[in-house]
Amino acid sequence: MNPPHLPLGPGSEFDTVRAILSRWGAVAHGTGDDGAVLDVPVGCQLVVSTDTFVEDVHFSRAWLSAEEIAYRAGAAAISDLAAMGAEPLAMTIAMTLPEAWRGQVMSLADGFGAVARETGMLIVGGDLSDARVLTLGVTVFGTVARGRALTRGGAQAGQALWVTGTLGSARLALQALLRGLQPSVTHRERFARPRPRLKEARWLAEHGVTAAIDISDGVAAEASHLAAASRRPMTLHLDRLPLAPGAGYDDAARSGEEYELLVAGPASLDAAAFSREFGISLTHVGDVGASGGTPVVSARVNDTHVPLPRGHDHFAA
Amino acid sequence: MNPPHLPLGPGSEFDTVRAILSRWGAVAHGTGDDGAVLDVPVGCQLVVSTDTFVEDVHFSRAWLSAEEIAYRAGAAAISDLAAMGAEPLAMTIAMTLPEAWRGQVMSLADGFGAVARETGMLIVGGDLSDARVLTLGVTVFGTVARGRALTRGGAQAGQALWVTGTLGSARLALQALLRGLQPSVTHRERFARPRPRLKEARWLAEHGVTAAIDISDGVAAEASHLAAASRRPMTLHLDRLPLAPGAGYDDAARSGEEYELLVAGPASLDAAAFSREFGISLTHVGDVGASGGTPVVSARVNDTHVPLPRGHDHFAA
Repeated sequence: MNPPHLPLGPGSEFDTVRAILSRWGAVAHGTGDDGAVLDVPVGCQLVVSTDTFVEDVHFSRAWLSAEEIAYRAGAAAISDLAAMGAEPLAMTIAMTLPEAWRGQVMSLADGFGAVARETGMLIVGGDLSDARVLTLGVTVFGTVARGRALTRGGAQAGQALWVTGTLGSARLALQALLRGLQPSVTHRERFARPRPRLKEARWLAEHGVTAAIDISDGVAAEASHLAAASRRPMTLHLDRLPLAPGAGYDDAARSGEEYELLVAGPASLDAAAFSREFGISLTHVGDVGASGGTPVVSARVNDTHVPLPRGHDHFAA
Repeated sequence: MNPPHLPLGPGSEFDTVRAILSRWGAVAHGTGDDGAVLDVPVGCQLVVSTDTFVEDVHFSRAWLSAEEIAYRAGAAAISDLAAMGAEPLAMTIAMTLPEAWRGQVMSLADGFGAVARETGMLIVGGDLSDARVLTLGVTVFGTVARGRALTRGGAQAGQALWVTGTLGSARLALQALLRGLQPSVTHRERFARPRPRLKEARWLAEHGVTAAIDISDGVAAEASHLAAASRRPMTLHLDRLPLAPGAGYDDAARSGEEYELLVAGPASLDAAAFSREFGISLTHVGDVGASGGTPVVSARVNDTHVPLPRGHDHFAA
């Protein structure tokens, strides 16, 4: 058994940690002690979320490079901060590494370093362990002005449901990969390097959005979570979903791991201004009903009720 | 592939999460959204640390019950907060579960619930994933008055080195378990349920201690970390180490996973008052030299230099 922080065997373990820290540069902060010390701005609350990514459960080595696998794991975790309307602060990274992955440690570190740098996160702690399976554990911390977090429970009667960006790429990429095919460059890039919508979420919060969730299991499934948490029925117009190139409405409704945001806010949001600011679309896809109704989602096409598409199911697809 | 938060297959996943939350009761806080929202007191900094525990790397199922394995993983992680002099705040728990452990999920949850309750931590996030290996990922958050964290680098010339409690039990318990024997009740209890020295650390900080580290790899190894980080030579008197029943000086020096504290502070600390307050000993075991010397640890027995015992090495022992 190796000690928790120095798991790569006598001689090499310190070198590995030093090499990782050197690659991370200024993105690494406060490492080398029992814990890292961070400042939380006065008037802010801390937002925390944790995710684990397991080889052959959440991803396959055949699909992506080591650097992309780590980038995607980091982006997926950071996306939860966006869904809370939080400012990025810091993250910890715990990796368990089988023998077959030892040569890829620096590439994994590079992926985490890249996503931390691009999103403005510090890497403040880590842990390397031996194991028979590659697992990437990412815990993220953000800050939000007191009482201003975008929860799932904040949707109000009469609000509109909006979606950032386009949907369907991740599903189309995954379907190609599962068949051993190469996805289109556009779909592959969206799948390999999802962009947490941190700034977009704060713009939305400043413009009256009161509830948000990130799209990890498909927009239809996320709408159900939002409805249940907000205790209100919702309507989702499948034929208004913003489609990625080549995607149909069903793809867009079911596509998971998009890491776009589904939010509830004013019907009067200025989608054109949002689009000018961030270079992605903002689309009105549904509405929030009055409380008292059963908190379910009614899916519509051409304003006719249709069954709600099931969430995505990855390997089981 | 299952979605990150609901990994136990159709039907059972929500039930499992609900059952865990119900067992945790008031210890669980802010779950069910993309992230948990926490208050950090004004004037305080956040302290963060992460640890992963892997079956057959950090522990063996033959040694401990599922509840004890989780308790010990939680305590080991929380001990890092003690080593920083931090107040407990919250933790996240990420478990990857092979088929063979599915029946033990509630026992694992009970172990985390117990250590959270006993130490005053909230459980604010979690993640359950399928995997071929049991891994327990614990990230802990604490708070400390601004600028008052007990770092490894804070040892000052002329200070004394002190150790809380007694040392050796964990090593003796592990040696028995590795031979397929039952450890004594005392050693087994110390090994299965280490107590993070949170309150003890804050007492020490209030009485002039300026540097601390928790003993996860053996006090001799930890003294070396303290010396290196503080850039000062240190002396460690092996024959003054506080011994667990049946332990010799070499056991005490090498015993890892003790989760006692090694600290640097005034030679005048009132060990009797500490002992009355916490029911464990506080022992003067060495001294901090002037800066400028090589930052190494000189081990002594009867004031004669001896080789510094190596840290513990678990399965490799």
